[in-house]
Amino acid sequence: MERYSNVVAHIQSVLPPDTRPSLSRSVIPTIIHCIDGIAQALRTSHQVSLAGTANSFGDDQLNVDVLAERIIRDEIAKCPSIATASSEEEPTERPSRETESAAHSESSEVYTLAFDPLDGSSIIAPNWTVGTIVGIWDGASALHQTPSEKQIAAILGVYGPRTTAIIAIRVPGSTPTCFEVGLGGKDGEATCEIVRSKVELLSPPFKTRYFAPANLRAAAEDEKYMKLVTHYIQQKYTLRYSGGLVPDVVHMLVKGHGIYVSPVTTTSKAKLRRLYELTPIALIMECAGASAVDPVTGKGILEEPVGDCDERGGLICGTADEVSFVLRSFGLQ
Amino acid sequence: MERYSNVVAHIQSVLPPDTRPSLSRSVIPTIIHCIDGIAQALRTSHQVSLAGTANSFGDDQLNVDVLAERIIRDEIAKCPSIATASSEEEPTERPSRETESAAHSESSEVYTLAFDPLDGSSIIAPNWTVGTIVGIWDGASALHQTPSEKQIAAILGVYGPRTTAIIAIRVPGSTPTCFEVGLGGKDGEATCEIVRSKVELLSPPFKTRYFAPANLRAAAEDEKYMKLVTHYIQQKYTLRYSGGLVPDVVHMLVKGHGIYVSPVTTTSKAKLRRLYELTPIALIMECAGASAVDPVTGKGILEEPVGDCDERGGLICGTADEVSFVLRSFGLQ
Repeated sequence: MERYSNVVAHIQSVLPPDTRPSLSRSVIPTIIHCIDGIAQALRTSHQVSLAGTANSFGDDQLNVDVLAERIIRDEIAKCPSIATASSEEEPTERPSRETESAAHSESSEVYTLAFDPLDGSSIIAPNWTVGTIVGIWDGASALHQTPSEKQIAAILGVYGPRTTAIIAIRVPGSTPTCFEVGLGGKDGEATCEIVRSKVELLSPPFKTRYFAPANLRAAAEDEKYMKLVTHYIQQKYTLRYSGGLVPDVVHMLVKGHGIYVSPVTTTSKAKLRRLYELTPIALIMECAGASAVDPVTGKGILEEPVGDCDERGGLICGTADEVSFVLRSFGLQ
Repeated sequence: MERYSNVVAHIQSVLPPDTRPSLSRSVIPTIIHCIDGIAQALRTSHQVSLAGTANSFGDDQLNVDVLAERIIRDEIAKCPSIATASSEEEPTERPSRETESAAHSESSEVYTLAFDPLDGSSIIAPNWTVGTIVGIWDGASALHQTPSEKQIAAILGVYGPRTTAIIAIRVPGSTPTCFEVGLGGKDGEATCEIVRSKVELLSPPFKTRYFAPANLRAAAEDEKYMKLVTHYIQQKYTLRYSGGLVPDVVHMLVKGHGIYVSPVTTTSKAKLRRLYELTPIALIMECAGASAVDPVTGKGILEEPVGDCDERGGLICGTADEVSFVLRSFGLQ
């Protein structure tokens, strides 16, 4: 993986010396390589169609969902220190390869992957930006662990006009880091460029203030959410809401501020999967200096263990001040 | 332009026999070729930055705006029947090449191009889908003409996970048509596939109803717009609003329904350029069976001539019933 040598060097520069060689040299480069592969597959998938199957949650699967899942499964099988994996498409933790290789037993690093291979199914047909979400956990399972301690890295793949990825790492004993890479160079050259070595939210005030009100239909029957949305409009916030979790979060990370709200109300149940969506997104946000909290409890997304692969929740994330305002509006602070 | 032979054949099949050979064989393939070139340029432009220049409207220009403008100007200079061109970046109608070629004077077809090379500057940095907008007019100028008669084709380039284009043609004596192509095949092969030979809006009812409220900050000081937005929320419409005109319109075209509203209010002036944004979008929408009207007059966007290159307006477009509802809400019907 010569191509990713700059990324490897960057990761090693933020980790304590000589720690986690597999994470920097193998696990993260493998995921970036998958993102590049998925980008290429999407680029030529002009016929977006139903695969005729459904995942275990009963969602219809698109051909491109299946494609992305396959690319990741095939690549991580070659990565000795990834012991276990589960995904939104196959939501059961199982060994990432059929027979354990000698290499794995020799490695002192053992990781579990939890991923959503292609998030944003509803906006793939109109050719809007979609993404991949990956959480990397210490040990042989991501379940029943405290996410803030055990989820040590997360990656977002972003498939738009360019192919980019946001990488966050937070291992015990080192400073959290979040950076952005751009994949692909001129004439189809397989390059990987560090676009921004530090992705971080800025401090207010801001000339433009952005808001992304997810699950807006819930406001029809929830007075607090309706009042909050009305507040943003009256205060002349600028609306940016694609309906794709990855692009909506990346918008805040790149602009340096913003607020994303996906509430849970009495009539509108929690939609986002904690393992495949919420915990990786929350780690990325925290590493960039943002907050990510649960709209029901008001607690940090990463404080509570994930009990099973299908567990769901809502999300409030973005600039810390804005998140606090939402919590107060919801009577949680 | 062998690559576009299927597109040429498709266009010829909808035009009256042996008419407008340049339009089908040269003008439209040239624009598609530009869209492919812009897609490739964007894919490797990982450092999106200000070019240090401003266009004639005073907007800051991004390096990618300049790149896209250059690609289109260079290509159309090779197309004999495109006599005149103007764009959002260089908004003055002028000959599309410096010296008139013999080929041009021999051609009986004379066209004017009006284009926005890269629409959606504000969402390029976060890697959201952006687009190109092109209107093709009969004759040597697009100004002071009735758009519904003289603008005979329009093309949207869509730069997302894939590269796609929506092409609409409406020439006197033939049935209006709107279709979608996908650009680029496996292993970087330069293919052009007709993804949908007919792009058209569907008839209600719809399981999900989409709304895209542009210029939402205007609702803070405009009671009618606030009431309309509240109506959509109370009626549980699904929000999809990227803030990019091309992806927002293409969302409706691909889903087959929806409503986009960019109002003009006393405190919020008209933002969309009639020549480079509104008239091409309106032709695309009408050819797909949708409506596109002015939110101030309630008249069709294509009814009124464009007086100068900087003329601006608002837009209500989408499913005919939905457009009527907005007009009634605004007291225009």
